[in-house]
Amino acid sequence: MSASRLNFRLDAQAAGSRARAATFQTLHNEVVTPLFMPVGTQATVKAQLTRTLEEAGSQIVLANTYHLLLRPGPEVFRQLGGIHRFMSWDRSVLTDSGGFQIFSLPHSRSMSEAGAVFQSYLDGKTILLSPELSIETQKTMNSDIMMALDRCIASTADEATAREAMAMTHRWAARSLAARGDSAQSLFAIVQGALLSELRRESAARLTEMPFDGFAIGGLAVGEGKSEREDVCEFTAGLLPNDKPRYLMGVGTPLDILEAVHRGVDMFDCIIPTQVAQRGAVFTSRGYLQMKRGVYKFAEEQLDAECECPTCTRYSRAYLHHLAKSGETLGWQLLGKHNLYFYHQLMREIRESILAGEFLELYHRKREFLHESDLDNPTRLPKPPRKRALRLRNYEVHIAREGFASMRHIASGEIMHSRTEPMEEARRLYVEQSNLAERVRDRTMEKLVVWDVGLGAAANAMAAIRCYEEQAKTAPTRPMRLVSFENDLDSLQLAF
Amino acid sequence: MSASRLNFRLDAQAAGSRARAATFQTLHNEVVTPLFMPVGTQATVKAQLTRTLEEAGSQIVLANTYHLLLRPGPEVFRQLGGIHRFMSWDRSVLTDSGGFQIFSLPHSRSMSEAGAVFQSYLDGKTILLSPELSIETQKTMNSDIMMALDRCIASTADEATAREAMAMTHRWAARSLAARGDSAQSLFAIVQGALLSELRRESAARLTEMPFDGFAIGGLAVGEGKSEREDVCEFTAGLLPNDKPRYLMGVGTPLDILEAVHRGVDMFDCIIPTQVAQRGAVFTSRGYLQMKRGVYKFAEEQLDAECECPTCTRYSRAYLHHLAKSGETLGWQLLGKHNLYFYHQLMREIRESILAGEFLELYHRKREFLHESDLDNPTRLPKPPRKRALRLRNYEVHIAREGFASMRHIASGEIMHSRTEPMEEARRLYVEQSNLAERVRDRTMEKLVVWDVGLGAAANAMAAIRCYEEQAKTAPTRPMRLVSFENDLDSLQLAF
Repeated sequence: MSASRLNFRLDAQAAGSRARAATFQTLHNEVVTPLFMPVGTQATVKAQLTRTLEEAGSQIVLANTYHLLLRPGPEVFRQLGGIHRFMSWDRSVLTDSGGFQIFSLPHSRSMSEAGAVFQSYLDGKTILLSPELSIETQKTMNSDIMMALDRCIASTADEATAREAMAMTHRWAARSLAARGDSAQSLFAIVQGALLSELRRESAARLTEMPFDGFAIGGLAVGEGKSEREDVCEFTAGLLPNDKPRYLMGVGTPLDILEAVHRGVDMFDCIIPTQVAQRGAVFTSRGYLQMKRGVYKFAEEQLDAECECPTCTRYSRAYLHHLAKSGETLGWQLLGKHNLYFYHQLMREIRESILAGEFLELYHRKREFLHESDLDNPTRLPKPPRKRALRLRNYEVHIAREGFASMRHIASGEIMHSRTEPMEEARRLYVEQSNLAERVRDRTMEKLVVWDVGLGAAANAMAAIRCYEEQAKTAPTRPMRLVSFENDLDSLQLAF
Repeated sequence: MSASRLNFRLDAQAAGSRARAATFQTLHNEVVTPLFMPVGTQATVKAQLTRTLEEAGSQIVLANTYHLLLRPGPEVFRQLGGIHRFMSWDRSVLTDSGGFQIFSLPHSRSMSEAGAVFQSYLDGKTILLSPELSIETQKTMNSDIMMALDRCIASTADEATAREAMAMTHRWAARSLAARGDSAQSLFAIVQGALLSELRRESAARLTEMPFDGFAIGGLAVGEGKSEREDVCEFTAGLLPNDKPRYLMGVGTPLDILEAVHRGVDMFDCIIPTQVAQRGAVFTSRGYLQMKRGVYKFAEEQLDAECECPTCTRYSRAYLHHLAKSGETLGWQLLGKHNLYFYHQLMREIRESILAGEFLELYHRKREFLHESDLDNPTRLPKPPRKRALRLRNYEVHIAREGFASMRHIASGEIMHSRTEPMEEARRLYVEQSNLAERVRDRTMEKLVVWDVGLGAAANAMAAIRCYEEQAKTAPTRPMRLVSFENDLDSLQLAF
């Protein structure tokens, strides 16, 4: 076999970024990057038909050697001719090695040079997962890309521990290569070294000397903070060869992926899209939505107006809310399907922007957006000022002797509503007298526009918003828009 | 509105049976009977897309007023324009009244002439489910067929209890009709009366005086035996008018349905097809299969060779076995989908046989078959002789003084293998020396044929079968066929 089983080709390299677009060829299909791989732990992506994955544009599915070794077991794959036929999927499969599961799963285990000894959670049998058994199992599954068994540790481990685990990973990598032999399946090594640059450098140098078909950045997303992860990712990606795929294992949210693409990574896998679906959450063009929230109870509109997935084209937010609240598995299926479409669509957009020389622009635009939480029904302002100070430029919160809070204009020293409870006054004078609650409930009317001309200390505005939120909790409402001629919203932000 | 909202038309009446084929028109589609309605308790048929139901041929889906009253609540249906749009289903919906849930669910309740008082299992709120609230809720859902709230009791109740409940059911039926008013939605009454013919007669007479659009047989499948159920079903169906649909609520297995069609019933609903799927079981042309059984671990063939559903055309028994063993919801989805196809296909065959004047023939053929359990891998003989006698025509089991069993030919008095343990001898002499285990494991070969020329006391045959079963438990095997020139298999049956 050639040393380059994947025939990797760099299609474009973004300017001002390490982001890159590439193409490679597996035993089953041509794959374009950057690439997200759905996780099919038990040879099934949670609650999804393989037909759905095809329609969503999945190119590679990840399967777990650790779980599939225990059940159904290698003999089944051997008899049935590999995992593709078994799970009815004719695009690519990447099999992990079991290294991460040995590290993370709570079954009694001991580690030695030979491999990891653990007890099967199914029948209690003791199993030695050696680099050779891992590769043998992955060969039986006939996956397109195999991973070498690695020795995974907490990313925050001390240097001595990290060095020892890294050295064992390197020896296991060599044994994995030997075990692969002349199989046509590709094999990736996994760079370790915790958060220590010197070790990462050494690990990358040692592993890239060997004829692997690609390299993974392992040992991240296991204890460190986000910025540490991004730094180590960027540093490590920079140590890897340009002409092989780079794979960041187990990461992450859409934003995490965007950040890692920017730092030079090509491939990703993560359980997040299907896992959050089971909890009732989705990624959309209107931000990250938790569908169990009461605000969706009457929401007739589609889940994501900008999405053309089967969930968005057929079902309303109200119905998906109902399924999520009822814990129905159809909800997991529909929300998970949408999330997979969202991830794949994001990867396609990223790739197109790299090819078009516009990645940095997309990066900055998406970065602002991808961390947003539900733009339609925000639960908080993006940067709540409350925790920092009770003061914002020309305004500050004033606590009256009577105990209630109101607003002081710092320049003039004027305290608005200094002797009466301002919210109570606003409620009585403006909200009740205007019949706002009733008008908000009247869905036969168009959007309700409230003019709060001077804004002042924002008490009237806050009272109107509270009234609206009260109503929205119990029944569907018409949209409300609050308009002011004030050019300074500081008092309203403080009041929030 | 006309008294006959459904425009019911009898298409054919089977000869020698009460089975009938009919057509009626709901607010959404033309419906042909006999008819099975999948159950969508929470406005979703468990784990199934509405697209799947359409493709499987579902004509009406049943939804539960009790559950949907509590969540999402009538206000959601009112705002979103009914249940069809809510769940994205544009064929018919039948809504039950909540009567059965009040009877069967374990939440504190009290019953009075006004209705049933119970506590919501969601928020503990006390709710009075009156006939009027039931109809009002069903009107809000805009279902095609509404059910009148009935007073359900155990079918084995004494006459006084049954009479009182029946009388209340009749008064509630009248109130339900009044509450329906001139709505275009159809309304069915539910005949009660436990297992007592006199009460059933009275209930049918009283209810059929009122202008209902159809009649259900209620209060069955709640404690009585199978033959009692069939008798009461037949008796009650005979009391109902010919020109309206007859609906047996909550029944049942494919065989139960076939029996009830034979007794004159047109409509059925049941959770069985999706419920057994969740437990890993399916109805197929090879009988009722429990997919968790180890015999399917290596089974490459499709679930049901005679079925063209999406599950059967794409997935192997081995994969479905794996999903069932792993408890993956994709398994519930795939097995449930097949079961729904199976039910609908059965109903189509029944209808065609009625129209072709061949129902009785189909009835006898299907009746023999539909109770079968896994013809490919039987776990027992259809009629195990063991429980009745240790004797079959010319053979009997003989217990030797040494404690082991062997076979006596009654006519001659000859005891075969009277002084040595016959199974042990057969194992040593024939199974081990022929290397049977090894040859069974050799899948490169064609079917293995074992000639047991004389059969005798069937010890050798039994030893060969045991050897095969042992091997099949641990690895895939080649098929084995046992052939004998003996024209009398009694000894083998006894040995089983």
